[in-house]
Amino acid sequence: MATLEDICYSAAINLLSAIAFLFAFAMLRLQPVNDRVYFPKWYLKGIRGSPTHHGGFMKKFVNLDPRTYIRFLNWMPAALRMPEPELIEHAGLDSVVYIRIYLMGLKIFVPITFLAWAVLVPVNWTGGTLDKIKDLTFSDIDKLSISNIPENSIRFWAHASMSYVFTFWTFFVIYHEYKEVANMRLQFLAAESRRADHFTVLVRNVPADPDESVTDHVEHFFCVNHPEHYLLHQVVYNANKLADVVEAKKAMRNRLTYYQNKYDRNPSTRPTTKQIGGGQRGSKRPIIFSVLANISTRRKMQEELEREKVLSDANAVIPAAFVSFKSRWAAAVCAQTQQSSNPTMWLTERAPEPRDVYWSNLAIPYVEHTIRRFLMAVALFFLIFFFVIPIAFVQSLATIEGIEKVFPFLKHLIEADSIKSIVQGFLPGIALKIFLIILPTILMLMAKIEGFHSLSSLDRRAASKYHLFLLVNVFLGSIITGTALEQLKTFMKQSASEIPQTIGVSIPMRATFFITYIMVDGWSGIAAEVLRLVPLIIFHLKNTFLVKTEQDREQAMDPGCISFPISEPRIQLYFMLGFVYAAVTPLLLPFILVFFAFAYVIFRHQIINVYDQKYESGAAYWPDVHRRLIIGQLIAQMLLIGLLSTKGAEELTPFLIPLPVLTIWFHKLCKGRFESAFVKFPLQEAMVRDTLERATEPNLNLRTYLHDAYIHPIFKHDPSEKTETMIYDDEEDNPLVATKRSSKFVSDVSSGSGS
Amino acid sequence: MATLEDICYSAAINLLSAIAFLFAFAMLRLQPVNDRVYFPKWYLKGIRGSPTHHGGFMKKFVNLDPRTYIRFLNWMPAALRMPEPELIEHAGLDSVVYIRIYLMGLKIFVPITFLAWAVLVPVNWTGGTLDKIKDLTFSDIDKLSISNIPENSIRFWAHASMSYVFTFWTFFVIYHEYKEVANMRLQFLAAESRRADHFTVLVRNVPADPDESVTDHVEHFFCVNHPEHYLLHQVVYNANKLADVVEAKKAMRNRLTYYQNKYDRNPSTRPTTKQIGGGQRGSKRPIIFSVLANISTRRKMQEELEREKVLSDANAVIPAAFVSFKSRWAAAVCAQTQQSSNPTMWLTERAPEPRDVYWSNLAIPYVEHTIRRFLMAVALFFLIFFFVIPIAFVQSLATIEGIEKVFPFLKHLIEADSIKSIVQGFLPGIALKIFLIILPTILMLMAKIEGFHSLSSLDRRAASKYHLFLLVNVFLGSIITGTALEQLKTFMKQSASEIPQTIGVSIPMRATFFITYIMVDGWSGIAAEVLRLVPLIIFHLKNTFLVKTEQDREQAMDPGCISFPISEPRIQLYFMLGFVYAAVTPLLLPFILVFFAFAYVIFRHQIINVYDQKYESGAAYWPDVHRRLIIGQLIAQMLLIGLLSTKGAEELTPFLIPLPVLTIWFHKLCKGRFESAFVKFPLQEAMVRDTLERATEPNLNLRTYLHDAYIHPIFKHDPSEKTETMIYDDEEDNPLVATKRSSKFVSDVSSGSGS
Repeated sequence: MATLEDICYSAAINLLSAIAFLFAFAMLRLQPVNDRVYFPKWYLKGIRGSPTHHGGFMKKFVNLDPRTYIRFLNWMPAALRMPEPELIEHAGLDSVVYIRIYLMGLKIFVPITFLAWAVLVPVNWTGGTLDKIKDLTFSDIDKLSISNIPENSIRFWAHASMSYVFTFWTFFVIYHEYKEVANMRLQFLAAESRRADHFTVLVRNVPADPDESVTDHVEHFFCVNHPEHYLLHQVVYNANKLADVVEAKKAMRNRLTYYQNKYDRNPSTRPTTKQIGGGQRGSKRPIIFSVLANISTRRKMQEELEREKVLSDANAVIPAAFVSFKSRWAAAVCAQTQQSSNPTMWLTERAPEPRDVYWSNLAIPYVEHTIRRFLMAVALFFLIFFFVIPIAFVQSLATIEGIEKVFPFLKHLIEADSIKSIVQGFLPGIALKIFLIILPTILMLMAKIEGFHSLSSLDRRAASKYHLFLLVNVFLGSIITGTALEQLKTFMKQSASEIPQTIGVSIPMRATFFITYIMVDGWSGIAAEVLRLVPLIIFHLKNTFLVKTEQDREQAMDPGCISFPISEPRIQLYFMLGFVYAAVTPLLLPFILVFFAFAYVIFRHQIINVYDQKYESGAAYWPDVHRRLIIGQLIAQMLLIGLLSTKGAEELTPFLIPLPVLTIWFHKLCKGRFESAFVKFPLQEAMVRDTLERATEPNLNLRTYLHDAYIHPIFKHDPSEKTETMIYDDEEDNPLVATKRSSKFVSDVSSGSGS
Repeated sequence: MATLEDICYSAAINLLSAIAFLFAFAMLRLQPVNDRVYFPKWYLKGIRGSPTHHGGFMKKFVNLDPRTYIRFLNWMPAALRMPEPELIEHAGLDSVVYIRIYLMGLKIFVPITFLAWAVLVPVNWTGGTLDKIKDLTFSDIDKLSISNIPENSIRFWAHASMSYVFTFWTFFVIYHEYKEVANMRLQFLAAESRRADHFTVLVRNVPADPDESVTDHVEHFFCVNHPEHYLLHQVVYNANKLADVVEAKKAMRNRLTYYQNKYDRNPSTRPTTKQIGGGQRGSKRPIIFSVLANISTRRKMQEELEREKVLSDANAVIPAAFVSFKSRWAAAVCAQTQQSSNPTMWLTERAPEPRDVYWSNLAIPYVEHTIRRFLMAVALFFLIFFFVIPIAFVQSLATIEGIEKVFPFLKHLIEADSIKSIVQGFLPGIALKIFLIILPTILMLMAKIEGFHSLSSLDRRAASKYHLFLLVNVFLGSIITGTALEQLKTFMKQSASEIPQTIGVSIPMRATFFITYIMVDGWSGIAAEVLRLVPLIIFHLKNTFLVKTEQDREQAMDPGCISFPISEPRIQLYFMLGFVYAAVTPLLLPFILVFFAFAYVIFRHQIINVYDQKYESGAAYWPDVHRRLIIGQLIAQMLLIGLLSTKGAEELTPFLIPLPVLTIWFHKLCKGRFESAFVKFPLQEAMVRDTLERATEPNLNLRTYLHDAYIHPIFKHDPSEKTETMIYDDEEDNPLVATKRSSKFVSDVSSGSGS
């Protein structure tokens, strides 16, 4: 077990590396050339046009003002300064509520930390068991933990009672937080300006009708069953194939742009397409260029064909539609009611935001949906408990012998001692590392297969899966060493009362491991987040090779977004560690506090300056966050019961049993009280908004407003399309002379390539 | 273990007793004097007026026609003859679907029985393990069961595969049954003539408003939020106290009637109230009579006062209301949507039928509701697992010594040998017997405390609790001998994989016990049901002492009703036994088949001729029935896995594990597919009915139709009230002379007492 010095040493290293990241960030963000990496949000909002620079060429790339460097941490108070309503306006409710999770961590754990240090640390410190055992190595850390209390001691009552206090405090905080978020959501939905999804309902599983097309069937059904409220509807086309074509075309365009750029920068050496061959590098390219252009044109024609085919083909209309109503009230009614006597037909729900729709999944029939979910549940089980098997198999192949077999020519290279040791040390871990990196992608793919039809629900679903994975493989896996599969075997053979004991008994011993984990993953990891090293490099690469116009530069920016399915389950791990160790090893709590405070500031900065969310769900994920907090609490309570019963304090078990029962009841209470705010839209609110709108805008033409709100993005007028057309035109005509098409993009292209 | 002869002997006894019951029933039902006991339904329907008799006085009471006795079983085909649509019309959907449960039992188990006897019985019979073991006593029954198969035999694959076949067959039957019942319910709701609950929504948790009364608040809220649809509403009065007063008055009236009758039959000896005392029995009564009449009058005044107080007191209006709409569509919309942003306020749901409302529970606030449910869940846990503790305590008191202590004067009596042995044999069981008799009442009380607000939901809730109790204390309690508390201890100390083994291994050994159980409880018990011994006795007692008029005789009839919370969980026990033993001891299956067939005929007869349901919920309980079938299936599958793994066939476990997983998935599929038909009312159906009604009855005045549909029964015009007033009037005036009030009841009373 690590001593206090070890912990301090590790803390120092991690603090230093965090500070180094922060310092690097502070330096890099001041350089105008990185402005689009560290402040993309402002560009997307149109507030910043180009890096703030006055003066020479040098100043355009490097900040030479020494004063700005002195206050290198001044972004932190700046990040905290923006008031919440403005922040919601600026970054959306999803992001604001997301950083509230960190704030909630502080609200829960600051009082708990104080209480634990005031009550439990003295109780533990004076326990005196470890002083008596001379032959065991122990550290000051263990003297602060529950391990220092002798078996069967009356002192355990302190831990049991404090566990009640902690639980009730957590209940208090998360109840109020749930209430607050529910209010914020309702206010957000009500205060927002008019949005298409307020009036629209997504209808799935439209039954097939031999006499009518889907669009007629939908129209008739809603004209009959919502006669005074139905306004219009938009059918959904199965544009998956078209989307593939468009995707391929875009990839082609990128390559074209790259070569185009080369020549635009050096127009004098521009060869005609008739020049073929030759030793010069420059003269080889035109062939590639013209071949690419040909393919590109063919792709474009193919796309047009496919587009026409989809639009004219009745079979390409999938049995789903977006139905819009004359009022929010009618849309809320339709979304919440059952339409047909067969509950698997005419399924209605609130339409997601147009950006939020996941178009590929809209056509899945009901029974297929349940089968997919079932198969994915089975797959998740195997993924969690058996993922080590394929990895172990890959690892067994990825030995020196395995490599020599497959690549015999490498034999003399890797047999060299220095390389051999690197390979031997590196290879066994690499399969696991790669797996852990692609895991979120796998989970997202599983969520997509399950058939959810909005990006926000896909994110929530993937987060649930990832949380389970972390819970079993990181949390339990670190406590009971051994793979999840071995754990599963152990648990199947142990009784319901033994399992918490087995885990509980190892908990105090793993405290130092988790402290280190918090520092590495929580402190340094979060500091690395603010540095945005990968987007920084990619931006500069793109900027050098692809960017031609301001618009291209806009597209080269990668503001990124909060990766909810990855980061939220990780926060939950910290919450769980806090709950578990609050009564066992209070020393761990300050480390968690630092994580929450630090992450709060960093992510507040990021959502103000960087992230651009892909959709806005109105904090629809909060019920999931709440549920996982409850799961964390339950696990902590069960483990405490297990731990205490191994310490000869079984008489405390009946005293502690009500705790999980109360927690489950509390969860049900909160669910009943608040969850519907995240699922349903109350009629009263809808009616208030409708009445207000009728009074203020009596002449509003809702039909025009809604008529193409829910069109598949592939059919939308794409501004980059024209630019591309321009490129082809350039090919054939004179590149720098405007064509007859007098679109605004022409001038963009000209000015862009002229700069 | 019992031999085949034991089983045959027991079967013979039970068959004989069942036949004796049936014979007694056949004799008794032919006597005109019992007509109101065995055919009350027809009297309530107004089809039968009085026993069919022609001829003398004797024939009025006894059937002397010998021909009718010969065909003493002819009620059976008669019971089966009525077609289902007519039966629904006659007895209601609840009853018809209830007997479908028995029919479903036949559908499931007839093919399973054939298959099991065709495949598993030969496999077991030729297993030959028991032939080799000479020193153990075994019977032919065990040779038919899985016990006869040697350990580690390949024959177990037959049982595992058949278990798949049985499961899939059950899936097939219960899926189609669910579908059929859902269709029947929708048709029933749609085909029914206009009912108040189609247009009405029960609104609970109306928030308090300082400026408005509840009734104004409700009206304003629905006028604003359902402007084109709101019609009227009826507030609910807290009439619990009034109901008590009325109840007390009724009890008093019964006693009065009894004395009244005495004197009406012998008017010549009728004394005045001034005659006091005397040795004669007749002369003592007038005092009681006048005292009772005084109390009765006072009760009546008290009731009037209370009634006025309730109606005038604004605080007596509870925050709940029945809100009626102009169309079924609007009521369906309001019932299915969330009204206010606070989901614990303005809770709406489909109004139960007026008869079905449980008025006392309408006022419970949301949070109190969750607390009550939580407390009752805890109470149920203790009731199931710890009910033996108070019983053991009572038993320890109820020994000979205990009685002697409390009642010393009984000492010499109970010390007599013969009595002593009876007391000793009888007392220990009596506490348990009493507990089991009052258990359904306790469970119903718990359901009432939980705060459900319709009789049908109370019944369903009590049934769920009783099912759990039977599952733990009868099924598991019979397999693992020992109390539930001991079981709980065992299970806490055993691992997840050991529990099914522990139970599974005892299953084949308990087959004979369950066969006997089925014969006693299922065969004889059901035959006793048709005899209606208790209602028969009570009717004749009432008829002799209380009945004065035809109307009284009507009230003395106790048609009873299907006691869903008691009998449905018992059927589920038979289903579970069938599922569990289908693969283990197929010998048990024919006994279950006899039960299902016999019970089907008997209950079909009863719902045609006897039972009068208190309410009509439209088979709303079917999702519960389905869920419990799934629970039975899951338990059977787990136990088979446990049993096979103790038989050295662990390699079958992975083969069988998908079975419970599939079962859970099947349950989810059915739930999603059909459950909403039992919870929601689809808008399409509502719209069709509305349109039809508008076309056929354009001038319907819905307001008049609905205006007092949901009035508390205590405020309703009670026909018996007047009769009672008459009795008081009789007291003061001349009894046999009509008073000035010229109501139809006067003539009833006169003719009734004159006959």
